[in-house]
Amino acid sequence: MNLRDIGEFGFIDRMARGSVVKPERVIKAIGDDAAAYRIPAGEVALLTTDLLIERIHFLRKATSGYNLGYKSLAVNLSDIAAMGAAAHHAFVSIGIPDDCRVEFLDDVYRGMKELAAEHEVNILGGDTTGSKTDLVINIAVAGFAPKNELMSRSGAKNGDAICLTGTVGDSRAGLHFIMNNIKPQTAENQRLVQAHLLPKPYLHEGRFLASTGAVHAAIDVSDGLSSDLGHILKESHAGARIYADKIPVSPPLHSFCERVAKDPVEFALAGGEDYVLACTVDAKKAESLAIQYERKFGERLYITGADTDSAGIELIYASGESKKIAQTGWDHFA
Amino acid sequence: MNLRDIGEFGFIDRMARGSVVKPERVIKAIGDDAAAYRIPAGEVALLTTDLLIERIHFLRKATSGYNLGYKSLAVNLSDIAAMGAAAHHAFVSIGIPDDCRVEFLDDVYRGMKELAAEHEVNILGGDTTGSKTDLVINIAVAGFAPKNELMSRSGAKNGDAICLTGTVGDSRAGLHFIMNNIKPQTAENQRLVQAHLLPKPYLHEGRFLASTGAVHAAIDVSDGLSSDLGHILKESHAGARIYADKIPVSPPLHSFCERVAKDPVEFALAGGEDYVLACTVDAKKAESLAIQYERKFGERLYITGADTDSAGIELIYASGESKKIAQTGWDHFA
Repeated sequence: MNLRDIGEFGFIDRMARGSVVKPERVIKAIGDDAAAYRIPAGEVALLTTDLLIERIHFLRKATSGYNLGYKSLAVNLSDIAAMGAAAHHAFVSIGIPDDCRVEFLDDVYRGMKELAAEHEVNILGGDTTGSKTDLVINIAVAGFAPKNELMSRSGAKNGDAICLTGTVGDSRAGLHFIMNNIKPQTAENQRLVQAHLLPKPYLHEGRFLASTGAVHAAIDVSDGLSSDLGHILKESHAGARIYADKIPVSPPLHSFCERVAKDPVEFALAGGEDYVLACTVDAKKAESLAIQYERKFGERLYITGADTDSAGIELIYASGESKKIAQTGWDHFA
Repeated sequence: MNLRDIGEFGFIDRMARGSVVKPERVIKAIGDDAAAYRIPAGEVALLTTDLLIERIHFLRKATSGYNLGYKSLAVNLSDIAAMGAAAHHAFVSIGIPDDCRVEFLDDVYRGMKELAAEHEVNILGGDTTGSKTDLVINIAVAGFAPKNELMSRSGAKNGDAICLTGTVGDSRAGLHFIMNNIKPQTAENQRLVQAHLLPKPYLHEGRFLASTGAVHAAIDVSDGLSSDLGHILKESHAGARIYADKIPVSPPLHSFCERVAKDPVEFALAGGEDYVLACTVDAKKAESLAIQYERKFGERLYITGADTDSAGIELIYASGESKKIAQTGWDHFA
């Protein structure tokens, strides 16, 4: 089906269906000049936004609409999670080229709506327009957090334990399959591809970590652990020590790295798009926080390193050897 | 200068400069995973977002960066104005093709920042990325309003006076000069082009109208008076009567229409992109509201028609003749 067959307002009706899952938070949803929504008493407001453009962030021919919609929202939710806030509403702007079929767009919104519903996030507005060549998606997510429980990149202190909410490097290994057009044949490899396509936003975990008061700084791992940890260190004027054997590496990534003769630590440090949370925690509270965390979520909080008062990141091997690691981040214009 | 010369983070530093004009509202600005900001006590939150794509909404070669930046923000502020809210923060996502020069982008942000500063709006975040072909700009604006003073498209009542905060049709006439590549030689024609390029967001006026409690429904005139009034009527299950001789037509539009032998009423009804506010006001309060409004802003609030209980819009001429008018709106996929 072509968009021309249903028109702009037909499309808006279609994508607005089932988009409000927490109506009690809403004053005005899709259909007015702006959306209006309630504010939880005593909280502050948060907003994050991400722009995805075809041929830069994704290839329309190589992705399913579902995965595209899911991940577009997931990366925004992850930013709200990293601040320790709850995500309430998403606003989706979409620029649609002539040759984009309604079925593909239905799939995009199905991916978004399923993830949104899982996290009780309303899709509350946005903008719909044409585009000459590329499909364009911008999502803004609004959230809230109690005034004194916000996490940020600054605040890491010398001696803090550096913790991760999940394994790192899987997404980068999954991308290897996608870029080389290799169908993952084993369940292990499928898990790597899944990590890349359908990243989990750690919203509940972020909210919990923020509420404990033990976390001094946090970020989500989007560009790679070394790069994102670097942002915390820069904002906090701190350094870090990472223990190579404490970096959480998944069994699928171990197997993959053995097969391709790569160091999993490299993948873990430079990988990117894992969207786990990295946080620095008061050293005295880290062990008990990790126990509480595991009891609550049934998953480990990995204590991977410590903040130092020297500059940069030092990687320390079990052998006692150490090296400085580069903070290689992604520059869109380099 | 090319973006490659300054890099993504160089560009972000550049555009973040001078972007916070009301620091007391801000908790976290550009540089963290999400922006965080304070909430005025007892108010509700609003959000609007607009996506502009090159070759759909503008021609990069035919516009100045300043005008592009100014108008991109103005149309969003206008949506907040139509809800009767105050705009607090803007979030700018930008997708930049290789051949877009830093000087042009500096101009885009200069246009945005000047308008933002005029209305005490912070530019508090966004996203910066590459784009293969087209320049892409998405702006989201967050605002606040007292709980009981929100205006919306629904709520218009039979008998309400239909009011406009400014003249309509000028922008469409201005577009005529731009599309036909005619340099406006007179001050009058320059005012028409100006109306198209640098529309005024009626934020103070919207906030005032909402605070009076006399307004039942409101919208900003973006698609044309007949189309936008149609949205109010649809949401409010009402009809309307418009008096042709009461439609505010500017002297420059009168002169222009005389020269091109067109009916200014046509331009006024179907024009679009005027971004004045249209509202329906309790009939008993309309006259005194117009007096108050003029005293406060030194501009007229034009009483142009009345809501009725029949369907659609009826245009009534001074002669007593009348006709039904079509609600022709813009469909991006038609």
